[in-house]
Amino acid sequence: MHRTHTCGELRSQHIGETVTLSGWVQTVRDKGGLIWIDVRDRFGITQLLIENDADTAEKARELGREYVIKATGTVVERTAKNPNIPTGEIEVKLSDLTILNASKVPPFKIEDETDGGEDLRMKYRYLDIRRNPVREKLELRAKVAREIRNYLSDEQFVEVETPVLIKSTPEGARDFLVPSRMNPGQFYALPQSPQTFKQLLMVAGMDRYFQIVKCFRDEDLRADRQPEFTQIDCEMAFVERDDILAMFEGLIKHLFKTVKGVDLTEFPHLDYADAMKYYGSDKPDTRFEMKFVELNDVAQNKGFKVFDSAEVVLAINAAGCADYTRKQLDQLTDWVKRPQIGAKGLVYVKCNADGSFKSSVDKFYSQEDLKAWADKAGAKAGDLLLVLSGDLDHTRKAMCELRLEMGERLGLRDRNTFSTLWVVNFPLLEKDEETGHYHAMHHPFTSALPEDSEKLVSAPQEARANAYDMVINGVEVGGGSIRIHDKTEQSQMFDALGFTPEEAKAQFGFLLDAFEYGAPPHGGIAFGFDRLCALFGGVDSIRDFIAFPKNTSGRDVMIDAPSPAGDEQLKELAIQLKK
Amino acid sequence: MHRTHTCGELRSQHIGETVTLSGWVQTVRDKGGLIWIDVRDRFGITQLLIENDADTAEKARELGREYVIKATGTVVERTAKNPNIPTGEIEVKLSDLTILNASKVPPFKIEDETDGGEDLRMKYRYLDIRRNPVREKLELRAKVAREIRNYLSDEQFVEVETPVLIKSTPEGARDFLVPSRMNPGQFYALPQSPQTFKQLLMVAGMDRYFQIVKCFRDEDLRADRQPEFTQIDCEMAFVERDDILAMFEGLIKHLFKTVKGVDLTEFPHLDYADAMKYYGSDKPDTRFEMKFVELNDVAQNKGFKVFDSAEVVLAINAAGCADYTRKQLDQLTDWVKRPQIGAKGLVYVKCNADGSFKSSVDKFYSQEDLKAWADKAGAKAGDLLLVLSGDLDHTRKAMCELRLEMGERLGLRDRNTFSTLWVVNFPLLEKDEETGHYHAMHHPFTSALPEDSEKLVSAPQEARANAYDMVINGVEVGGGSIRIHDKTEQSQMFDALGFTPEEAKAQFGFLLDAFEYGAPPHGGIAFGFDRLCALFGGVDSIRDFIAFPKNTSGRDVMIDAPSPAGDEQLKELAIQLKK
Repeated sequence: MHRTHTCGELRSQHIGETVTLSGWVQTVRDKGGLIWIDVRDRFGITQLLIENDADTAEKARELGREYVIKATGTVVERTAKNPNIPTGEIEVKLSDLTILNASKVPPFKIEDETDGGEDLRMKYRYLDIRRNPVREKLELRAKVAREIRNYLSDEQFVEVETPVLIKSTPEGARDFLVPSRMNPGQFYALPQSPQTFKQLLMVAGMDRYFQIVKCFRDEDLRADRQPEFTQIDCEMAFVERDDILAMFEGLIKHLFKTVKGVDLTEFPHLDYADAMKYYGSDKPDTRFEMKFVELNDVAQNKGFKVFDSAEVVLAINAAGCADYTRKQLDQLTDWVKRPQIGAKGLVYVKCNADGSFKSSVDKFYSQEDLKAWADKAGAKAGDLLLVLSGDLDHTRKAMCELRLEMGERLGLRDRNTFSTLWVVNFPLLEKDEETGHYHAMHHPFTSALPEDSEKLVSAPQEARANAYDMVINGVEVGGGSIRIHDKTEQSQMFDALGFTPEEAKAQFGFLLDAFEYGAPPHGGIAFGFDRLCALFGGVDSIRDFIAFPKNTSGRDVMIDAPSPAGDEQLKELAIQLKK
Repeated sequence: MHRTHTCGELRSQHIGETVTLSGWVQTVRDKGGLIWIDVRDRFGITQLLIENDADTAEKARELGREYVIKATGTVVERTAKNPNIPTGEIEVKLSDLTILNASKVPPFKIEDETDGGEDLRMKYRYLDIRRNPVREKLELRAKVAREIRNYLSDEQFVEVETPVLIKSTPEGARDFLVPSRMNPGQFYALPQSPQTFKQLLMVAGMDRYFQIVKCFRDEDLRADRQPEFTQIDCEMAFVERDDILAMFEGLIKHLFKTVKGVDLTEFPHLDYADAMKYYGSDKPDTRFEMKFVELNDVAQNKGFKVFDSAEVVLAINAAGCADYTRKQLDQLTDWVKRPQIGAKGLVYVKCNADGSFKSSVDKFYSQEDLKAWADKAGAKAGDLLLVLSGDLDHTRKAMCELRLEMGERLGLRDRNTFSTLWVVNFPLLEKDEETGHYHAMHHPFTSALPEDSEKLVSAPQEARANAYDMVINGVEVGGGSIRIHDKTEQSQMFDALGFTPEEAKAQFGFLLDAFEYGAPPHGGIAFGFDRLCALFGGVDSIRDFIAFPKNTSGRDVMIDAPSPAGDEQLKELAIQLKK
């Protein structure tokens, strides 16, 4: 071993011991007779001292940033202690110094606040990871994974590895394909999720399955998506919905407790319909209230055409914002009119301290009218009502964004506060407005709520799914459903989706076959592990929770992949580039 | 929850309780007034009893094998107890029975000893996994994985996920390629191992890395290989060889202790040269001795041309086998002459009880000659010497097989005995006899032994690698090396391998770049996880330790993958089938 201790280990109790440390040179300060070197490894930084030792001093003068050294000496008490680092009580007075490896000058500083831009950091990711903020995120990820495994294993879940080389499905437009050399002209696909395999494991009697597993999706990448991502994939047999919610609420509580020291309270259940009604989103940020209030009955038919012709008039109450200036209100109006939000305008009502109201629509509404709005919205003197109108879907969407923006401005979205909930009772089917066909909102094996099972035949569009999402601070961290295990219900589902029995067989043959041999009632959930880690880390981007991420073009700029293949390789795989 | 207890949980302490069980029907025994049902889940089997209950009896008569049921009743003491199962003290007298799902008659019996052949079991893998022997292997695998993570995490290793979509390397003839839709004409490769990434993580200062990770190799599959397999991949910084051996010897001891309750003793170190000399293999089965003895000096130049012209004359001593019959010896001779073994013949010497010798070469050798052989081989009265001759490589190889065969016949290869060792000091380079070029025996980043570092320039063929394999019971379970971290040594290695600096740059560019920025001394090891699990499970085949394995053509016969891709899919990927 090239060390006796790590660079984060020595304390005043070690004073007098002879030690050897190895690590990277952070800084060298040369004061002539005295030279100090800060040496760094994953575990910390220790100060080395060279005093009255010309040979060692000479070697030290060769050192540059990020040189790798091995240093032997005696632990001594520091004259000037540094209370900011755990090793700040001591320094090591060197008797020997060896350069294990030189380093070119790194392209950016290996410090918490670096001067390296995103592109440079990604190209030299192996240097970026030396920085504390990145390394700590990878360590956090490992810790979260370990605690997930502890909890689920203790609950008798078995971690089973499912295949990575699987079958492409006809609807798998976003599948990565892998040509098979041994089966020319044929292709594997990489899994978008292990969904079918986990259901097969339930048919196989594994009872409780989980896996922390890479999944793949070949899609145009939004800013914070990756072509390969990691899921916590889980499934249980012989359960009903609330068994699953309790189990995985328990998992997340365990993680918050063990990883962050935070005790979460019970997760409320929120109907999908209510989530949309009060927050305009199926993943509401519930760290703050500011629920939508519908003003149709008090705001319509008073002569203001914009409202009169609207499907819905929605308000939120920004508490304490009555003192917003004209400029601030104009700026907010511009904000909601941006194409990303798409509102046509913004109506406001200031609830003045003296009990009067000042609004942007004073010529249409009396003080009594505005008081009725304020009463309905629970607004008090000093508050500001913000009102949007239009068709239901767009208005909800725009108001959702406005609510989040106001929450942000009012400091109501603290990253160290965690508000959790289950959104339940999603619609089972979505109608494709263009084709008029129904799609499964989750997937075609999601069951209807028991009380809605008749509707699958009589009124499919009204049937609610026995599906659930876990939402924390406005982020959908996981979702799942109770699956269909009954043949009749499965046929009804395929009917509703417009599949002929032959089409269903072609797409889902082996799973349907398996279901003929005694499928138990079962259900499950999958969590986005990268996203969950980011939530724990208190940041928005998943990028730094992945050791070697890809950019928005799906490229790894460090290793320069993907890249052209050799003719010989393609020939072996029985494929060629499209001419 | 569709149950209050699992089918493996009830004991006499539960007598009198009302319980609900769910599971699969194993058997139904209908004695008219009394019906017994054995219901099974992952956790065990419980006997259900229907007595004086016409309604429930009627339902029970609908049941077939593998029906899924939910049964409620009272736990009662059995009149005829079954000491062979943990629930054998009790049965559940039913008050209610629900069929949760019907089942077709399964294509083979869901019992420990099944009537299903390999092909049928693979096609219906979800039924095969319901069988105890398969399910227990998957559970064992999960347990081994958990203990690996416990040990390594406690030793401050960080589990880091490395990418699955990486860059194809020019020598990656066995790479699976993945066309990139977003980068037309370009391909990712699936990793054969995370070797370069783990070395980058050492440059990145992660200090101790591990990962239990899927790897991929598109090669013609031998009986017991899989195109996707799992490695325990590990790397450490600032270490020397013996630090790594101690750490991972500790890991394997921990696994044997926690998973099998076996205390292993210290692993001996065996030189590669000695392994070849005494066992003819770099992965010797050391559960038994029977080492090779070279007889050249006592067997040559006595007029037996076969031996005189041979490069080597090797013997093993099969203790207690002097009573082998003519027939047995002929059969053994035929065995070594099979093409798989390739020996030209087999010479034997029986060490008779009376002190005389009987050999197949009596006309060339006197009793004194044969006594000299026996003395040299340590053979006593009652033993049998088996002798092969020829060129060194082939004779060692054939003798290795013969030794293993004799060990098997003599019952010396007990699956519950574990003999472990480290094979060390492998040759650094192998010469390709056809081209005369050297290849790296491990990979081009493996360092030479410190004492052989000069030889890399002066006599490359004599340089030994700082590489090591862990061998248990004749199985190479893991291997690794101390890597090169010094630029000069790396250049010398590339020189020895016949790479120009440009070629080295083209193949290993980003890793060589990284090494310019302060690479620490480092080394690591990788274990074959599937194989390790099979060893723990006491069987030879890895197949049943993989939930959904592929056959020797790389096909998953259950899901029927790989399969043809749609024209539209290929077009999107900018490839077409080779005309």
